[in-house]
Amino acid sequence: MRYELYYWPEIQGRGEFIRLALEEAGADYVDVARRRGGVGTMTAMTDGSQLKRPPFAPPFLKVGKLVVAQTAMILHVIGPRLGLVPRAEADRLWAHQLQLTIADFVDEIHNTHHPISSALYYEDQRREAKRYTREFWRHRVPKFLGYFERVLGEGKGPFVFGRRISYVDLSLFQIVEGLRYAFPRRMKRFERKVPRLIALHDCVAQRPRIAAYLQSDRRIPFNEWGIFRHYRELDA
Amino acid sequence: MRYELYYWPEIQGRGEFIRLALEEAGADYVDVARRRGGVGTMTAMTDGSQLKRPPFAPPFLKVGKLVVAQTAMILHVIGPRLGLVPRAEADRLWAHQLQLTIADFVDEIHNTHHPISSALYYEDQRREAKRYTREFWRHRVPKFLGYFERVLGEGKGPFVFGRRISYVDLSLFQIVEGLRYAFPRRMKRFERKVPRLIALHDCVAQRPRIAAYLQSDRRIPFNEWGIFRHYRELDA
Repeated sequence: MRYELYYWPEIQGRGEFIRLALEEAGADYVDVARRRGGVGTMTAMTDGSQLKRPPFAPPFLKVGKLVVAQTAMILHVIGPRLGLVPRAEADRLWAHQLQLTIADFVDEIHNTHHPISSALYYEDQRREAKRYTREFWRHRVPKFLGYFERVLGEGKGPFVFGRRISYVDLSLFQIVEGLRYAFPRRMKRFERKVPRLIALHDCVAQRPRIAAYLQSDRRIPFNEWGIFRHYRELDA
Repeated sequence: MRYELYYWPEIQGRGEFIRLALEEAGADYVDVARRRGGVGTMTAMTDGSQLKRPPFAPPFLKVGKLVVAQTAMILHVIGPRLGLVPRAEADRLWAHQLQLTIADFVDEIHNTHHPISSALYYEDQRREAKRYTREFWRHRVPKFLGYFERVLGEGKGPFVFGRRISYVDLSLFQIVEGLRYAFPRRMKRFERKVPRLIALHDCVAQRPRIAAYLQSDRRIPFNEWGIFRHYRELDA
């Protein structure tokens, strides 16, 4: 079956967590909005004119006849089909719960450069962004990444479910990659506190399909339109 | 089976979405942290000393041997057991997707009074809160509530799944209640734009078990520690 992914074509954004799962599994998929006319196709699907159950926003994924939205829910749905989560119900729920916690963290990462409104430019909320980012690195990064480090410490590693990779591991890889891009100086100082997370990141980077994907033009480079943005003044 | 709910005892907060579902279903549950010593029991469950798979934060629910966290996921798990979601997989996913969108909205509602950091007092981020709230009512409330209004318009009403109530309806009721508490003036002006949502709210309020719950001391009153807070200067 061919999956159809719908997400903004210029950024990694939340869509990247889906792309990484599809790529690791070697799934057949189309990144619809990166094709000619694809953005129009995508936005028509959220305005309610075509679908009885329209998504609120991208990313969403067409899986057969079903259109599913919300990054963590998409992964919850395709995880078993892609072999990227154990079959047992308790394991599936644990993966979903962790992914929802990652989603919460991603929201806060976005807020480091847009604490006031996504409808305003970064330049129009720079002062608030500096203040937000200071608190974010003081309280939230240690709390979130410390939590995932503890979770990894409960198992035998290197992944959340031991030697078997899951979509959660792919997302944690992306979190590390993104924080390194956005906050290279801060992240460099912080990484020694989360050695298991960094080891997980390195294991994911060495997966043959992920390594090939990262080298391909399917991987959109980080930039200053996505979730992880590098602004020098925020990386004090 | 007796459910054990773990959430902060002083506030409705995110726990309230779970409480409303348990109450509507007439489920047997204990609100653990509202009992003597319960907060200590709760916090011990998040620090990793007792559970191999600790929740990141409250609310979480003990369902038999399973401890599940993340508000939307808790509802996804207990929805079928409580008869608060249709059985068909596509319906269950649709409800979960809507609930995750509600969770996103709840995060933004929280940010109206804490746009910079939850570790700071409101008074220390009042200026940013005013700015955030202005943009929130300009862009985000119309977008989120307009979306739910459209979703309701796709069905026969009054609820998301027609005549059968679901946990999503209970959460939308709470959103309307909370916005009325926090922003009475703004909400009064806005409500005429979402008549189906208000009709849904009124139907939920008339459910016998919900009406009884709202009158009981199990319903914690709104206050200025929770998600929905009333600050006069934000309700311009």
